[in-house]
Amino acid sequence: MRPQIALFGDSITEQSFRPGGWGAALANNYSRKADVLVRGYGGYNTRWALFLLHHLFPLNSANPPAAVTIFFGANDAAILGRQSERQHVPTDEYKENLRKMVLHLKGCSPTVLVVLITPPPVDEEGRNAYARSLYGEKARELPERTNEVTGLYAKQCIELAKEMGLRSIDLWSKMQETQGWQKKFLSDGLHLTPDGNAVVHQEVTKVFSESWLSPVEMPFDFPHHSQIDGKNPEKAFDQRCLSL
Amino acid sequence: MRPQIALFGDSITEQSFRPGGWGAALANNYSRKADVLVRGYGGYNTRWALFLLHHLFPLNSANPPAAVTIFFGANDAAILGRQSERQHVPTDEYKENLRKMVLHLKGCSPTVLVVLITPPPVDEEGRNAYARSLYGEKARELPERTNEVTGLYAKQCIELAKEMGLRSIDLWSKMQETQGWQKKFLSDGLHLTPDGNAVVHQEVTKVFSESWLSPVEMPFDFPHHSQIDGKNPEKAFDQRCLSL
Repeated sequence: MRPQIALFGDSITEQSFRPGGWGAALANNYSRKADVLVRGYGGYNTRWALFLLHHLFPLNSANPPAAVTIFFGANDAAILGRQSERQHVPTDEYKENLRKMVLHLKGCSPTVLVVLITPPPVDEEGRNAYARSLYGEKARELPERTNEVTGLYAKQCIELAKEMGLRSIDLWSKMQETQGWQKKFLSDGLHLTPDGNAVVHQEVTKVFSESWLSPVEMPFDFPHHSQIDGKNPEKAFDQRCLSL
Repeated sequence: MRPQIALFGDSITEQSFRPGGWGAALANNYSRKADVLVRGYGGYNTRWALFLLHHLFPLNSANPPAAVTIFFGANDAAILGRQSERQHVPTDEYKENLRKMVLHLKGCSPTVLVVLITPPPVDEEGRNAYARSLYGEKARELPERTNEVTGLYAKQCIELAKEMGLRSIDLWSKMQETQGWQKKFLSDGLHLTPDGNAVVHQEVTKVFSESWLSPVEMPFDFPHHSQIDGKNPEKAFDQRCLSL
């Protein structure tokens, strides 16, 4: 009955319904207009996420999502030879995996609005502090992710969006425009603070609104209560039903 | 593919995805397990909500909700002859309207878990202060809702749950067990503060968990990333697919 907006990604998507989260804020914006579904898988890279694709977004579904945000790369960018290397995916494979996701979603619905989001920047100092808070002196010495390397993935993501004519959000660059982004937007050097969530929410809302999915312009599903005549409520709903 | 939990109610449901909201907190708990869908209609009473029932929950749907919270009464309890009388619904009709909702949902799915939630208590002083903040000296003198009258609706709601063998949450009583509930749980004498949202979240989670819908016990839809062998990721997903 109403459009579905799916948020597909890693932990930054999975955590997006925590207090201050960008997913919850979107769901609030689209209340009575569209359903926002979280499809976030903490720790997943694009290679592993491909295994989920047909299950989460079946071909020939009667109700495919109207819009999907694809927000991976933070785990793909884990560096070989360091602590999280298990999650590493090379940049060229990352790009091709994203392409496969987009093509699959277009196969589910030719009109789907796909928005690619780059990983956020990495604050290496924040990562180190986080590792020490968990493991003390036993913490690894070299950060498992660096901002420079994550930037290469962001670049691939934006390039793919251009190649495929998709909307994209260069979160990696956008966040670094703000002084003090390291602590303002990131809680542990990688995941988002409420301020960081607000940036994602703002950017996603902007892209959706510039496309055909403006939460302000979309009509409510049913009359606002002030339009209901207390003595003749049928009238408000009859009119609505005519247009359904 | 995954169960749906629908939150059906008035503004207290519609606002449940705002920061600190009980709906967003539920969506976070059920991430990777169930989808939480907000079906909140600010200002609606049960009489008007009946017009939505067949649209929101069509009979013969291939995917009816597994669980529904029904959370009305705050508007039905508006007092005749006062400012919000347009929203007033008599207590006996309120009860019968709730019964119609439950019967309809059972018609959609005989196994649906329905949880009835009473309206929260009303802080008349808070309502007056809110009216004065909007209208100054022109504010109405008598509160459009009273705690006593809202309590009559809460009683009907709980009685119906008993008659129909449903789970229910007596929010009206529960909140009043806490000293200072008027300001602690209510922002304008009627709607919920983050603390008030936390009470609803806690009570709904408790009822769901005591039924068959425990967010802790429900399995994840796909393997936790730590269970994926980086060199042989297929294995984790093959096993999962066998059980699908």
